[in-house]
Amino acid sequence: MQTGPVNLTEALASFQDVYSPRIVARINDYDVKIAHTEGEHVWHVHADTDEFFLVLDGQFDIALREAGGEERTVTLHRGDVFVVPRGVEHKPSSSGGAILMFEPSGTASTGDRYEGAIPTHVDSTTGHALG
Amino acid sequence: MQTGPVNLTEALASFQDVYSPRIVARINDYDVKIAHTEGEHVWHVHADTDEFFLVLDGQFDIALREAGGEERTVTLHRGDVFVVPRGVEHKPSSSGGAILMFEPSGTASTGDRYEGAIPTHVDSTTGHALG
Repeated sequence: MQTGPVNLTEALASFQDVYSPRIVARINDYDVKIAHTEGEHVWHVHADTDEFFLVLDGQFDIALREAGGEERTVTLHRGDVFVVPRGVEHKPSSSGGAILMFEPSGTASTGDRYEGAIPTHVDSTTGHALG
Repeated sequence: MQTGPVNLTEALASFQDVYSPRIVARINDYDVKIAHTEGEHVWHVHADTDEFFLVLDGQFDIALREAGGEERTVTLHRGDVFVVPRGVEHKPSSSGGAILMFEPSGTASTGDRYEGAIPTHVDSTTGHALG
């Protein structure tokens, strides 16, 4: 058992990379991850899992491709939560901020499938250990 | 798919009950719940699941019974996260605040087993719908 709490503000201050999730907790076979966000992510999809987002700071936008192929963007601010359902193509972007995610351990930040090239400022990872 | 985000501050303002979790999101077969906290909860245990806590506001203490039977208390403030592992008896208490929890859908707020009587200010529930 962990001995004490992890403070999210301190955890976020311990690294600078954007779109490079750190794992702050594990619950059963799920991970809680945090990430700094800035700029455009990549269109990607998780075929087998929903993905939960909580905005800890700043603004975070999620472009979504709906069933009919129509695109829309959900804009999230601090304290907002949103779930991207499995199978829905999405592309995060941000003017700067930080997010918390819940998803099964081993879920890749760029999905099972992504579109085009992964930008150099986006880390394709299942999450790194904190500090 | 939900059309827009849920704001946790607004969600918390929509009800007053303490220790009566509301479900704000579902990810696969897991729920994200929020609750106001104040006073003593009850000693209880979840045999089959870990339980994740994030303090959204105020202070939240978790008394824990360790393997040897020894008791210790973890004190959490806003922005702190902590996981109570499955099988560990615990009793939350709070001088006032709010928390977010992440656990499998159907997890009861008072565990599979609790000690003594459930205080009247503690709701034994797997979570209520918001609003």
